[in-house]
Amino acid sequence: MDEARRGGRRRPGLKLLLFLYASLFLNVFFFCYLVLSRHQPPPGWARSAARDAEAVAAIDCSGHGRAFLARGGLPVCECNACYSGDDCSQLLLDCPADADSEDPLFLEPYWQQHASTSSIVSPGWQCMRSRTMGGDFISAELDRHVRLLHKAAENAITDGKFILFGSEVGELLHALVHALSAVNASSSPACLVASAPHNPFGRRHHECIGIRSNYVKGSLSPATKIIEHVTSPNDPDGLLQQSVLGASAVIHDHAYFWPHYSSIPAPEDEDIMLFTISKISGHAGIRLWWAVIKDQKTYQKAAEYMSLNTMVVSCDVQLRVLKLIRVVISEMGKGGGIFEFGYKTLKTRWSKLHKLVSSSNRFSIQPLLPRYCNYFKKIRDPSPAYAWLKCEMEEDEDCYAVLKKSGIASRSGTLFEANSHYTRLSLVRTEDDFDLLTMRMEALVSKELIASS
Amino acid sequence: MDEARRGGRRRPGLKLLLFLYASLFLNVFFFCYLVLSRHQPPPGWARSAARDAEAVAAIDCSGHGRAFLARGGLPVCECNACYSGDDCSQLLLDCPADADSEDPLFLEPYWQQHASTSSIVSPGWQCMRSRTMGGDFISAELDRHVRLLHKAAENAITDGKFILFGSEVGELLHALVHALSAVNASSSPACLVASAPHNPFGRRHHECIGIRSNYVKGSLSPATKIIEHVTSPNDPDGLLQQSVLGASAVIHDHAYFWPHYSSIPAPEDEDIMLFTISKISGHAGIRLWWAVIKDQKTYQKAAEYMSLNTMVVSCDVQLRVLKLIRVVISEMGKGGGIFEFGYKTLKTRWSKLHKLVSSSNRFSIQPLLPRYCNYFKKIRDPSPAYAWLKCEMEEDEDCYAVLKKSGIASRSGTLFEANSHYTRLSLVRTEDDFDLLTMRMEALVSKELIASS
Repeated sequence: MDEARRGGRRRPGLKLLLFLYASLFLNVFFFCYLVLSRHQPPPGWARSAARDAEAVAAIDCSGHGRAFLARGGLPVCECNACYSGDDCSQLLLDCPADADSEDPLFLEPYWQQHASTSSIVSPGWQCMRSRTMGGDFISAELDRHVRLLHKAAENAITDGKFILFGSEVGELLHALVHALSAVNASSSPACLVASAPHNPFGRRHHECIGIRSNYVKGSLSPATKIIEHVTSPNDPDGLLQQSVLGASAVIHDHAYFWPHYSSIPAPEDEDIMLFTISKISGHAGIRLWWAVIKDQKTYQKAAEYMSLNTMVVSCDVQLRVLKLIRVVISEMGKGGGIFEFGYKTLKTRWSKLHKLVSSSNRFSIQPLLPRYCNYFKKIRDPSPAYAWLKCEMEEDEDCYAVLKKSGIASRSGTLFEANSHYTRLSLVRTEDDFDLLTMRMEALVSKELIASS
Repeated sequence: MDEARRGGRRRPGLKLLLFLYASLFLNVFFFCYLVLSRHQPPPGWARSAARDAEAVAAIDCSGHGRAFLARGGLPVCECNACYSGDDCSQLLLDCPADADSEDPLFLEPYWQQHASTSSIVSPGWQCMRSRTMGGDFISAELDRHVRLLHKAAENAITDGKFILFGSEVGELLHALVHALSAVNASSSPACLVASAPHNPFGRRHHECIGIRSNYVKGSLSPATKIIEHVTSPNDPDGLLQQSVLGASAVIHDHAYFWPHYSSIPAPEDEDIMLFTISKISGHAGIRLWWAVIKDQKTYQKAAEYMSLNTMVVSCDVQLRVLKLIRVVISEMGKGGGIFEFGYKTLKTRWSKLHKLVSSSNRFSIQPLLPRYCNYFKKIRDPSPAYAWLKCEMEEDEDCYAVLKKSGIASRSGTLFEANSHYTRLSLVRTEDDFDLLTMRMEALVSKELIASS
């Protein structure tokens, strides 16, 4: 009886306990589930693409490369120059330092740091319409964001002006030369002319005589109509430039007129200005340029020319650039701006190289001075994209060859219509490339110092 | 003592129970967590992009449009032609049926059905290198997949040939004409000539005299070197064509030589063949063409010309196309092929229009017959991209205007160097567009039948 009573008393307690535990369990479970799923995307079609992209990006290739889905869908490492092996861990000793290429890879870490805000998903049914620029939501948004970007960087005035987009600078130059020739009812297209040293890349095979500075050399008849092409900051030497030829029209290429590369004395307000996304965000693989045009007729003629020749920017490219510009603008207020990041990196590289070269009598680089910058609101150090290196000795007639012999790939001055005593060193590549460049330059300079001591 | 003993006996049991429950709880929790998280992507940077894309895609715009992230990051609906309102639910009654545009929107539902396999994520640091085509993983993969696609569709032989990529057909034509002129050491560039009716769009402003069929009209001197441009299936009439001019070189444009639009009698094996992704996958907003070239020298000259003029395809475009081709190939074996989907849709549209027009004496469309198709391994019905409509009555001299008056936007025969009694009706637009087109055509035909009865 005592046993039975005890059992009777125990059973309801146990039931209660069971109930309580079950309830507690459910409470905890739901709490956990909610917490866990709050940060997951809703179940849907974009999940597998996100998973694939994250899996590939998780492979770090020893910090000297990037992973890519290759044959059979397997990720493989594409190594930086001078690194090899499956995981890019082996440094190739005989490999030349790449100071030739213009890809602004110094900005790659910036985008890796902003992975979650800067990535986009392209659904399979995206971009099935072929509308030309300006006729749809995407283009209107891109136009609006380009204006916001110029306003934020304080480098150009776009109010009341027209923006024309193209894939390549060559396309825009063709269209603009055509439009400027047509406006003045000239029978033959005008000649596009630039002063040396200048970078003619992408402007070859141009109408008329090409971009070479024949005008300056006096080989053009005075009757020929001239359009001056001014690159400021100039490639190769990073100097801010003005028009000097007194031409009837001037096209200003401001590809490098952004706070990472140059001081911004004031926003530019010229009639025709060219810009490209690749120098701003560093995406050299994305082909998008734009012209900011003051005169409506010039804009219309140029736009019509491009439309007739179906020079259309792929919709995917527009969407990608739109996303990048959105991130650049939104991060500016938060102290994580790309201009600050870029400026710090290039300033450090420039001052390292400057220090190195200043101890040498054999080499010199262009003199750049600290200048007031309207964007940073202070005097800032130089941070050019390129060093314009001169071999000072008479016997070093081919400066490019001198560097090549010492394991440095540069771009010869002759390619910029300049003296072969000059060569251009690119400072915008990866940290690996720059480290190798300074290592090789150090060796060159110390050899000189030992010889002279 | 009895109480104390009872308590002593109870405590270890309770402890055990607690332990058991806690353990059970943990087991259940982990089990649940694993099951739940197995189908979620690992936590990472791509999540928010995936979430955003899915949220936008979830807005259906009443089935008459697509959502897009507009100003302020808010999704808005971009409506199909003739629909309006915030959710695209209002049909505009006076709106003309769009049978003019060439965007192959009939394939949009295919990609929506394959959302999870066809979407891609672009991390922010993607495409920071500018390497030209052929020099990197992406281009090599694209080249390989284009060959696989031609093999799978059995429409062209690519073995031992070279593939040259470009953004626009105009770029490739320029480069090829340049290369073909140079190969034969001719002093002036050759003339590109086509037989009417043909679609000159995108080939205007060409070297020499443009693409217009002046040769056929006898206005060219016999000394001029001719390159024939053959479009097969032809735009506008969908007929398979051969070269007829006996020119020294022929460029075959096979943009529509895919199983959705045409029977494939046998794989083509010509010297120079052109294709584009937009007609295969339907992505008119993605600009990518390729030339399959037999002769190595011609390929090299054309590639060099494009490289000098920096005609480079954006890396994002290459990646997007690579993904689309991968899906097209992988779905082919599974019965969900895009060719089957496209063929069924266009066959249905063609037979509807054919039935409608055949009851009319005022209108006729081109006669197309069922033909054996090597891809489907059977006799198949016609499924052309366009109907080449003729207004048979003498008084309907401007067929385009006749249709326009009845609310149908078409493309006039005069734009194809043909008689104005002809006009082209596009059958590749959305279901909405095609429904409106047949509604308006029905009205036109029944008016005619009533008048004649």
